[in-house]
Amino acid sequence: MKAWEENIRKVVPYVPGEQPQEKDIIKLNTNENPYPPSPKVYEAHRNLEVDRFALYPDPAASRLVKGLEKYYGLQEGQVFVGVGSDDVLALAFLTFFNSDKPVLFPDVTYSFYPVWADVYRIPYECPPLDDNFCIRPEDYKRENGGIVIANPNAPTSLALERDVVEEIVAANPDVIVIVDEAYVDFGGETALPLLERYDNLLVVRTYSKSRSMAGMRIGFAMGNPELIKAMTDVKESINSYTMTMESIEVGAASLEDEDYFQEKLSKVIATRERAKDELRKREFTVLDSSTNFLFARPNQAEAQWLFEELKKEKIFVRHFTGERIKDYLRISVGTDQQMDCLLQAIDRILG
Amino acid sequence: MKAWEENIRKVVPYVPGEQPQEKDIIKLNTNENPYPPSPKVYEAHRNLEVDRFALYPDPAASRLVKGLEKYYGLQEGQVFVGVGSDDVLALAFLTFFNSDKPVLFPDVTYSFYPVWADVYRIPYECPPLDDNFCIRPEDYKRENGGIVIANPNAPTSLALERDVVEEIVAANPDVIVIVDEAYVDFGGETALPLLERYDNLLVVRTYSKSRSMAGMRIGFAMGNPELIKAMTDVKESINSYTMTMESIEVGAASLEDEDYFQEKLSKVIATRERAKDELRKREFTVLDSSTNFLFARPNQAEAQWLFEELKKEKIFVRHFTGERIKDYLRISVGTDQQMDCLLQAIDRILG
Repeated sequence: MKAWEENIRKVVPYVPGEQPQEKDIIKLNTNENPYPPSPKVYEAHRNLEVDRFALYPDPAASRLVKGLEKYYGLQEGQVFVGVGSDDVLALAFLTFFNSDKPVLFPDVTYSFYPVWADVYRIPYECPPLDDNFCIRPEDYKRENGGIVIANPNAPTSLALERDVVEEIVAANPDVIVIVDEAYVDFGGETALPLLERYDNLLVVRTYSKSRSMAGMRIGFAMGNPELIKAMTDVKESINSYTMTMESIEVGAASLEDEDYFQEKLSKVIATRERAKDELRKREFTVLDSSTNFLFARPNQAEAQWLFEELKKEKIFVRHFTGERIKDYLRISVGTDQQMDCLLQAIDRILG
Repeated sequence: MKAWEENIRKVVPYVPGEQPQEKDIIKLNTNENPYPPSPKVYEAHRNLEVDRFALYPDPAASRLVKGLEKYYGLQEGQVFVGVGSDDVLALAFLTFFNSDKPVLFPDVTYSFYPVWADVYRIPYECPPLDDNFCIRPEDYKRENGGIVIANPNAPTSLALERDVVEEIVAANPDVIVIVDEAYVDFGGETALPLLERYDNLLVVRTYSKSRSMAGMRIGFAMGNPELIKAMTDVKESINSYTMTMESIEVGAASLEDEDYFQEKLSKVIATRERAKDELRKREFTVLDSSTNFLFARPNQAEAQWLFEELKKEKIFVRHFTGERIKDYLRISVGTDQQMDCLLQAIDRILG
């Protein structure tokens, strides 16, 4: 071993879902939106002045930040934007979780949380969800260095009521509580109304799911201006210019088309409900989803095996090997046609 | 003070040059390129399929990485890409500088280095440049936790010969030596040929200066595959998808137009030499630049005052308040026309 190897930061990276580049596959493995972004996004892309690529982008990403403040009815200084919600969440961990006490998040949740804690050497503990994959609020009423809750949760697809989120936020005035609402547009109750009353709450969102813009890397956090300032200072200590000129423009444009946004959300939700019913008819256990994916246990076959069989048919879903969830598949909601292909493939494989 | 405030990471952020959004100013303050990107970049922008924004980008940014490997004649696995060279450098600090011994970089250099060290709690020491703003190689031959050298250096504009860089790399086989070559295309001697012989060398570059693409946030590191793998693992522990779909495509396209690239480099260099001569005629002390900026001391006036006076005329240059450099201005090289405007303004102000 070389001497310099000793000083390399040791990590076990997060493993994202596969991103096969072929175009003839059905991709239901990373919870992308099956619909394209708003026509306003196409227009903003076309109108972008490529000459200006030579200049640095606005480091404050003001057009995007102001657009989000207006869209959510927030005050100036209440929004922070980053390179996808992963960038925003990682930065929030680095900014707010500097206590010796453990940060708390559930045992079954977004699997990036323990990875961020490890890379930044933040102690953490994972209270187990109950047997129905639900959070027990009492688990979050003990000494801790911060709390992270995905609501709706992934990969379970289950939503917590706002009252339960409030109970947890209210019980922890001395630490920052992050509510990761990546999927909330598909049916969860947002914690945003709580921002007025709780200065320790940070709500994180993404453009990658409901806004069909995973490829442009936009996420954001909303909270009291002091929290946003603290995150901005840490961000400015790492990279002054995180958002490309293009992401700022197309991100702002996406907000200007509420009808399109709501129409596509409705379509995803309708398809999800139909697919859920169809899977249940096939004796899958399917949790009630408030997201753009289904968490489904194929009771007639091993999940891992079905995952592999579907892949042979060029249908990609997600399988996690964690002990409590290894019998389930996480299936992103595609178009009606894509879900029909999935159901037909399942019938062939299990039939 | 609220309890949660105690656990916020305390930082003193880097202050980037101003990014005024007005279009009628002459912007010579952040070392941007006065020329637009290659026509190939315009073409790649036009051809981008906005439909695909709904999908995550390739997390490995393969098109861009392979393009860079080919362009620089490197092997597979020798290139890491990030959101500008600041992102790449910050990640390199986090990945490689985990020793208790101090990292070394000069007292006068890119002012982000101490900021990254602080935010990641890395000890560091800053050997002073000599009276001519040159590195003394012997300062880097003592126990340390890593070395960072900007070559050419900023804001001095001075280049080190490759032999001197090699002397430092060779003297430090037990730590990683980062050579930040943000400006090397404008006249420095690159350390790239040393990669074959030294596995502890990491060379970092950016698209923001020579490739006229600051707005699209592209930087990269080149080194032995083990270093690149270590950085990739840490990056995958923070954010799987850092590069937007667009940055990957336009970044790759920029490499396919060597004639345009060389032509624009030549123009910047010719303008720089002419502006240097003109400033010297006006009794400025101007260092010999191997970059796209000039480091110039106005001997007839205080630098801070001249900086403010130029701003009143809508000409933005950069002034740093550090003790050793407060008598200097850092002036980015614009077009010939922009430099003429600058010189005329100086004549009016000092005349």
